Order: sequence, then structure tokens, then C-alpha cells
Amino acid sequence: MTTPAYGANAADKPLEPMQIERRTPGPQDVQIDIAYCGVCHSDLHQVRSEWGGTLYPCVPGHEIIGHVSAVGGEVTKFKVGDIVGVGCMVDSCQQCPSCRDGEEQYCTGGGFVGTYNGVTEDAPGHTLGGYSEQIVVNENFVLHIRHSEDQLSAVAPLLCAGITTYSPLRHWNVGPGKKVGVVGIGGLGHMAIKIAHAMGAHVVAFTTSESKRADATALGAGEVINSRNAEEVEGHAGTFDFILDTVAASHDLDALTALLKRDGTLTLVGVPEHPHPSPDVGNLIFRRRAIAGSLIGGIAETQEMLDFCAEHGIVADIEMIPIQQIDEAYDRMQRSDVKYRFVIDNSTLAS
Amino acid sequence: MTTPAYGANAADKPLEPMQIERRTPGPQDVQIDIAYCGVCHSDLHQVRSEWGGTLYPCVPGHEIIGHVSAVGGEVTKFKVGDIVGVGCMVDSCQQCPSCRDGEEQYCTGGGFVGTYNGVTEDAPGHTLGGYSEQIVVNENFVLHIRHSEDQLSAVAPLLCAGITTYSPLRHWNVGPGKKVGVVGIGGLGHMAIKIAHAMGAHVVAFTTSESKRADATALGAGEVINSRNAEEVEGHAGTFDFILDTVAASHDLDALTALLKRDGTLTLVGVPEHPHPSPDVGNLIFRRRAIAGSLIGGIAETQEMLDFCAEHGIVADIEMIPIQQIDEAYDRMQRSDVKYRFVIDNSTLAS
Repeated sequence: MTTPAYGANAADKPLEPMQIERRTPGPQDVQIDIAYCGVCHSDLHQVRSEWGGTLYPCVPGHEIIGHVSAVGGEVTKFKVGDIVGVGCMVDSCQQCPSCRDGEEQYCTGGGFVGTYNGVTEDAPGHTLGGYSEQIVVNENFVLHIRHSEDQLSAVAPLLCAGITTYSPLRHWNVGPGKKVGVVGIGGLGHMAIKIAHAMGAHVVAFTTSESKRADATALGAGEVINSRNAEEVEGHAGTFDFILDTVAASHDLDALTALLKRDGTLTLVGVPEHPHPSPDVGNLIFRRRAIAGSLIGGIAETQEMLDFCAEHGIVADIEMIPIQQIDEAYDRMQRSDVKYRFVIDNSTLAS
Repeated sequence: MTTPAYGANAADKPLEPMQIERRTPGPQDVQIDIAYCGVCHSDLHQVRSEWGGTLYPCVPGHEIIGHVSAVGGEVTKFKVGDIVGVGCMVDSCQQCPSCRDGEEQYCTGGGFVGTYNGVTEDAPGHTLGGYSEQIVVNENFVLHIRHSEDQLSAVAPLLCAGITTYSPLRHWNVGPGKKVGVVGIGGLGHMAIKIAHAMGAHVVAFTTSESKRADATALGAGEVINSRNAEEVEGHAGTFDFILDTVAASHDLDALTALLKRDGTLTLVGVPEHPHPSPDVGNLIFRRRAIAGSLIGGIAETQEMLDFCAEHGIVADIEMIPIQQIDEAYDRMQRSDVKYRFVIDNSTLAS
């Protein structure tokens, strides 16, 4: 089965229309007609091989929303017509301790299979993502979507930006009575503010853009701090239970760890191109603070997040684009010129 | 009341005999005839003002064992003749959330009062430590010692080295079924090995000294890894539940975080003079690992540690010295030429 897609044939080539192969659904497979696909920074890094190791042709996209168009004979969780999602993973070993614990993102049995650039037996030998009309995925990696039809485009970013922030907020017990910082108001950060607020926490947004102050408040932040104003930052010393840092660029972590209470954690979800300045160990020791990392979330937790967001009316703030504008969208994303996520209208692949 | 002591009058002066003042015991005070005092690296840093801010005269010593020689009228927990200990703290605000939680070491009401160089109304305006014949301490900061009389000299180091390692081992749930690393086999590390082993964990000691291999095994390590052997280290990737790093000198943390399982923590208890190389964030993100710090332990936990050690027959490995050899002991301690803690015989202060 061939399906129209958009991808790149080399790191220095722009994305262009191409026809790709999808496998015939096996017994446990779900075939999905993709309606929308969010545009993640990872897409750009991967397609340009900025992390190295990109396999071509490269079809990015791991914030996928669509409708089930066929199911294999053993599929029990989905039926034709269901609204479904696919995130960053399409397979994992299902055997290792992490997989058994429902934390497939930390699979130690060879690592999870990414929705693009992952190892597969399907042609061309690596997975191809959501910038395409159709995708075929094992039902264990397909999510139910309970939002209404008119929300679907804005639901797409939940599959990566949503779960990447929901998982650490949940893991570190964010909820009522907790003071939670969200650093960076972009694709990830704007989701983190909405979700932490819905979890009942007092959310404090950190931004270097004075212009985002009103936005952050509208997203659910109870307070907004300009990270460049040292006095404003220091006024919050020792008061945070948890800080989620969504900024991938190298930056000073000490100003943030100093804001944590005893036993507080600063969790990073972005890998900087150049290392952060080495964090001050005294800042950790004198309040038993921690610096941690977190990677997307497991499938069960992703479903929990989607249900939580449906219940609380949470979707991403998006700007819809036809696939033909993807290069322009990448340029604008690099300049942070998007509020707050581009989403591809996959019906434009046919034009 | 004056009492013989040993201290320094300036950062560049050696320790020398001096007479210091101790307050007359107040209603809640315990007066202690000091029998032994352990020699901690902090003593040396403080007396030489290597951290800055040292007040002179400086009398170090915060691993104190002695006998109660007088008690104030309201003292309920101690009586004359009791064997007692005093560690790194002699007071705190008792009001802040940390103090109320029994975590006085993280006191936010001005910080705990250190056993030396802390703020006090007593002459000379700062606290003077255990390199002295007597000390007077509020009963809330005095510990019961349940070891036998003949063990007392070797119990002294538990008051700092013991609790500094016991507290994080307990906090991060070390026990049966857990694989625990101890990095550095010195004053702190040798206690950590003994305690973690007694807690029922499988203990793996990391050392750069091949000569310490047999020692580490004797202390209770089930395995010993030469940190300089990259292949030996990497063979343990992703297998540790917890690693306690007692090395204060700047060193590579990535080789250690890579050894942690998902959700594992590397806890640092030493502040390096020069920063560690900035840790790799990817190492944290891809297994939800954390790097944390920990500072001594609270008074209740210190009592728990002392009782645990008494029950399990744990004391430090020590070399006893007369106070007159303190400078030589400092020199040897800097060269790691001690197995594993110097302890002062305080009866030599009278000679």
C-alpha cells in the first residue's frame, strides 16, 4: 500500500512530496487515516540530521491524530471509525522491566521504536512518521481520543508536547497545595502551564519575553516571572515544590535550583546542544534538592493524559498549516514565532 | 567556666593550646566531659578558612563523644554519667518547616547553628567545637550512645561521617534487593559501605586505589570497581538503584549516572572546590535519573543511626591520636593516609 507523504531525501534538502509504503495491517495492527499531525522541534532536528544518524528518506511527525480505517483480526481495542492518536513510539520490546511497568519510553530491551527513524522490518527499513496520509501501528501503541471532533487538530500536540510535560508533573506529584514552576513558554511550556493548573497547582511561569506575560496568565499561570530580572527571581528563593524546565538551550540552572524548597526537584526535558553551566552542588546539598530528567511518557500514562485533557477541556494553542508550508513553519518555529504549535492539516497532502 | 582546648588564632597559624569559655549550663543544657572527638575534613577547611568566613579563635570538632557531667533543671532526657554524643549542630530555630519535620540540618529559620563557627551569644560570639575538654549543649542536640564503653572512640565519627551517609541511604530507601554504589573509600565512604551492607543492600564500592580492594570487601562491599577501569565500570550500566558519591574533588559524574537504573539517583555529599564537569542531561532524561545532594541528617535520624549502628555493631575504623599530633593528622588526612578516621583522645588536652 502506498500513501502520499512529505519528507526529505537528505539532511540538506527541503521536504518534498513523496510516495511511501505502509505495511498491510497484521493481526494486531490498526490502520489510521491521518487527519492532523503536530510539528515538533524534534522533527526539524531529525530531518536535518542535527542529532546525527538520520536515515533517508526521512518523514517526520509524531503528534498524529486520525480515524481508524482498518483493523487486524486480533485487534480488540479499536474499530473502524474510532478517533485515535499516535505519539512518539510505535513499538518496544514489551518484555523488559520498563515495558512491564508501562514505561515503554525507557525500554531497555533495545529501546522503544520511534514513530520516525526507528528500526522496523517495513520498507525502507526505518519508520516513517505522520507527515503522511496513512500509518499502520500495533494497537498497543494507539491511543483513544475522547475530545470532540472540532478539537482534533489542537489535540495532536498532546501526543508529544502534552505527555512530555504531563508525565513529570504527575511523577513528581504536582497537585493542589503545590507551587510549580514552568520554565519557557513554548510548545512544551504552554502545555505544562495548562496541565499543572488543571492539576490544581499554583503555577508560576518563567519567561525571558516580557511580551508573554499576559499569555502565560491566560494559559493558567498564577504568577509570571521574568527570568532576566534577578531580583524578581530571587524573591521566590526556597519556595517551589517542583520546577519543570522546558528550555533546551544552555542556561544557568543554579538560579532555578535555588528556588526549590527542601526535597524539591528541577526536571529537565530538553537536551541542550551545548552543556548547561555545571550546576552548583552546594545548592543541591543544602536543601537535599535534585536535578532530574524525564522523557515523554508511557502508553498507559499517555492515555491517562489524553483522558485528563479531554475531561478538563485542554488542547494545545495551535496554528494550522497546509503541508506545503512546512519549511516556512520550521523557520518560524526556530524563531519561536508560533503560538504555540504548528499542526499540519494532512488533507493537504492530497493536493 | 574555662576549659582547655586546641584551636587556631588565624587561618595561617597552626592549632595551639588555649583556654576557652563555656557557659554555665542553663535549664535545658547538658554539660559534657568530652572523651573523644573525630577529625573531619571540614575541621581543616574551617580552621584554615578555605571556605572563607572563619571566625577566630577557631576550635574545630563536631564528632564528639563524652559523659554528662551536669544537667540543667529542666533537662529530662539525660542525667549525669550518661554517655552522649554531639554532632554538627548545637541549635536551630525549632520553628521552621524543616525543624518541625525533624530535619534541623535544613533549618530555614536562619540555618542551624554549627558546633563550631556558628552564631551564639556565648563568648566569643561564635561556637567552639570538640577539640576541648568540655562542651555545653541544649539537650535537644545531644544524642544517647548505646555502644559499649570500649567502642566509644570509634563511635565518634558516626556523629558526622556516619549520619552524612546513613541519612541519604535511608532517604533513598536502600535495603534488601537494592544494588547500591559507594564512590570513594575514605572517612565517609567506609561508613557508607558498612551501613548500606547492614541495611541489607548489595554494596558496590568504587575506588581509584587498587590497594583498597581488599579493604572494601572487608568493610562489606559485595563487589569493588576500579573507577579508572572504564570497561569494568561500563559493565554495570543501568544496574544501580542508588549511588552515594562521597568524593568532594571535581570528577566526571556521567560515568556514574550511566550506571543508574530508571529512576535511580546519584547523591553527592561533598562540595567540590572546582565544579564537576557539567553532567550530561541526556543521561538523566533517557532513564528519568536524578542527581541530588544531601547534608548530614536531623537529630532524630542521628539518634536512629546511632541505635542502628549499636544494634549492628557498627563503628568507624579509626586511628587514635593525642591532640598534640593534630597538624600531622591534618597533613596525613589530606593525603588520604588514614584508615579511615583520626579520633582525638581528649584526655591529652590536659597534658
